[in-house]
Amino acid sequence: MEAALLDYYRAHREQHLEGLFELLRIPSVSALPAHRDDVRRAAEYLAADLTKMGMDGVRLIEGDGHPIVYGESLHAPGKPTLVLYGHYDVQPPDPLDEWLSPPFEPTVRDANVYARGAVDDKGQTYLILKAVEGLKAVRGELPINVKFLIEGEEETDGGVLSAWLAEHGSELGADAALICDTEMFAPGLPTITTGLRGMVYAEIEVHGSRTDLHSGMYGGVAPNAFQGLAQILCGLKGPDGRVLIPGFYDDVREPSAAELEAWAELPFDEDQLRDHEIGSSRLVGEPDYPPLHRIWARPTFEIHGMPGGFIGEGAKTVIPAKATAKVSMRLVPDMDPQRIADELRSAVAVLTPEGMSSIVRVLGQAPASLTSTDSVYIEKAAEAMSQSFGRPTVYQRSGGSIPVVGLLQESAGIPSVMMGFGLPDDNLHAPNEKFHLPNFYAGIETVGRYLSLLGE
Amino acid sequence: MEAALLDYYRAHREQHLEGLFELLRIPSVSALPAHRDDVRRAAEYLAADLTKMGMDGVRLIEGDGHPIVYGESLHAPGKPTLVLYGHYDVQPPDPLDEWLSPPFEPTVRDANVYARGAVDDKGQTYLILKAVEGLKAVRGELPINVKFLIEGEEETDGGVLSAWLAEHGSELGADAALICDTEMFAPGLPTITTGLRGMVYAEIEVHGSRTDLHSGMYGGVAPNAFQGLAQILCGLKGPDGRVLIPGFYDDVREPSAAELEAWAELPFDEDQLRDHEIGSSRLVGEPDYPPLHRIWARPTFEIHGMPGGFIGEGAKTVIPAKATAKVSMRLVPDMDPQRIADELRSAVAVLTPEGMSSIVRVLGQAPASLTSTDSVYIEKAAEAMSQSFGRPTVYQRSGGSIPVVGLLQESAGIPSVMMGFGLPDDNLHAPNEKFHLPNFYAGIETVGRYLSLLGE
Repeated sequence: MEAALLDYYRAHREQHLEGLFELLRIPSVSALPAHRDDVRRAAEYLAADLTKMGMDGVRLIEGDGHPIVYGESLHAPGKPTLVLYGHYDVQPPDPLDEWLSPPFEPTVRDANVYARGAVDDKGQTYLILKAVEGLKAVRGELPINVKFLIEGEEETDGGVLSAWLAEHGSELGADAALICDTEMFAPGLPTITTGLRGMVYAEIEVHGSRTDLHSGMYGGVAPNAFQGLAQILCGLKGPDGRVLIPGFYDDVREPSAAELEAWAELPFDEDQLRDHEIGSSRLVGEPDYPPLHRIWARPTFEIHGMPGGFIGEGAKTVIPAKATAKVSMRLVPDMDPQRIADELRSAVAVLTPEGMSSIVRVLGQAPASLTSTDSVYIEKAAEAMSQSFGRPTVYQRSGGSIPVVGLLQESAGIPSVMMGFGLPDDNLHAPNEKFHLPNFYAGIETVGRYLSLLGE
Repeated sequence: MEAALLDYYRAHREQHLEGLFELLRIPSVSALPAHRDDVRRAAEYLAADLTKMGMDGVRLIEGDGHPIVYGESLHAPGKPTLVLYGHYDVQPPDPLDEWLSPPFEPTVRDANVYARGAVDDKGQTYLILKAVEGLKAVRGELPINVKFLIEGEEETDGGVLSAWLAEHGSELGADAALICDTEMFAPGLPTITTGLRGMVYAEIEVHGSRTDLHSGMYGGVAPNAFQGLAQILCGLKGPDGRVLIPGFYDDVREPSAAELEAWAELPFDEDQLRDHEIGSSRLVGEPDYPPLHRIWARPTFEIHGMPGGFIGEGAKTVIPAKATAKVSMRLVPDMDPQRIADELRSAVAVLTPEGMSSIVRVLGQAPASLTSTDSVYIEKAAEAMSQSFGRPTVYQRSGGSIPVVGLLQESAGIPSVMMGFGLPDDNLHAPNEKFHLPNFYAGIETVGRYLSLLGE
């Protein structure tokens, strides 16, 4: 990368950090209707930034939900066109009392910025903007063509982007998409993610009695919706971590021998994972698969919370009429989300105890994805990362889900390049989410380097 | 009962209803710290009423919690002394959206007053006050001696009354206690309750990971506290309703043959219970015992709610670090609450999955009680009820718990007389709690008649 660009990036670190802080202060929690206006404010902030840095056609793409921020620069004829993806919405911040500093007041401690969305994905979206801004400022024009697509529903159902891509995806005409929404395998180790798990998110609701009942007057004869739900949940997943839904594992594709070999060479530290990231006396899950295999290439079933009944302080002796479990299943290639959702429905129906009824509501679903490493877009990305971090880039999968990867592939045949600058202990979706500032700055330089390489 | 007293009661119905409404408007929810002042306001309201009707020594007995309202009249030498018990605290009103009229705005529909506490136990406490007020007004003096003890923690742990009785119970010097906090077996059927279940109320808290985790990054290797808790709950109670805690049934005393025979003659309507009170397609529970036996003479284990994790709208993909179940066990004679609490602790410890930890917090406990019907205080109560309702009085047990019954017996050797005016469909502890107004008025007359009979 030319010295002028590197100088520019390094001279603007303070401005870049200030701009990021401003974005992090906006509580753009897409799942909570109360934050609807905040979500829009974050979109408008990014759109204004795109306009200021000289992008064309900047606009908010509206749909039935939170808008997509769009902007493009198509002044490099004959050069590749890259979709630059990010998301400006964040997870809800609760439990609030576990944050050391408020989630929407970004705070720097030990070279990390702590805030909800710091790394997922405001920080990693904003570093793409700043990389492009620098290229434009230093060169006057970008070395390749770019189309920004920054959505506001990644943490919910992604409905607006999914609907827009279904209609307009084929007109995008891009060669690849750059997505910075993943993490490095280890601090300082440049990493490209080639596989993601998919997901089905659902609510299982069990009904016992018609109304809440006194547990003295009716305890012994009235169905208890929570007891029924507990039975269903125990019937869906065994104590060994194996999901018991009939047919669940039928379509699971095993990783290739080459992939398994590469994983075995990664500097995986089970003690670090168990003691420092998870903080449990042991790892759980299917005993026949090693931990990385379980996270990257095996499907899961998790309970996120169980609303209903009496959850206040003290003692209330009620038999709740209704109990709900919020659950999700992570999927791997080649599991079909629709088929898995159907299998969940069938399993819950079979497991529902006599005297109770149940319904399953699917809130969102997306397939898993797996990208080939045999592509110039991946190769140049690996080269840019290796240059920035001074070490060979490794390939990993991720246990998370980034629905846009599957959507871009399906709707427009656009492969994704997942360059991540997060760290394993960044507390994604948890209290005290953070982004390591040296990675934020390295991310800007790496993306600048990548776009330069693609333009050569 | 003399005509003058009956005339007095009937002439004052409007005033009695207005006074009850005033009491019902005070949201004296003892379990919720936010209502602390309201609880005290209800106590002060009753104390003022006792003073106004001419009771002596009226005061609030303070302790570590909500106060007891005390007042006495000891001007009938040689006549019996009766403790008049009631409680002025109520259950939390949630779920609020299921109430047809607001829980603290008493509303009359179809000869029922709807409000939280209407029947449990403000209405049934207030009718004792009004019965005594009438006797005093008409006769100038009461036919027997009375000591009011009206507590404000019956719906929580009853700590203040329990501590006070432990210290002062033996000085009470009463022959029996009248408690109106139960229900009639069927509309119009005068009923005295002779047995109550006891209770252990506890929270089971399970810890998995140290902090909430991203279900993509860690799903497959991190323990899920809710899954662990579901397993524990399934291990504590089987699908057939049988509690699986080792030793749980060891001390259960079977009802006598005479009692079982009397129960068989009660006009029990299983369809009414199942379809109209519970509203489920079938009754659940231990198949070897008939429904009344299960409710009155078998212990239970119920889940009331499961706080923790994500319970908001939409989708949040978190593996919660902590999950809690609020549970209670109803006990029957001769189960020892302390022993049952210990057995629960042991069972939970054994059932806690590897990689997780758990604790059990006991929030309250009380033994079951069983009163002999062979007593003048029960006989006169049955006579008073029969006269009021024009039918022979029946004896039942209740599945509920009224801890004071056991406390009075233990601390002072005082037997309780449980005369109830509630109806089976009064929605105790549930939305749309009600009290049938004809029973409120009949209750006043019956208590007036009972005190008159005891003074003869």
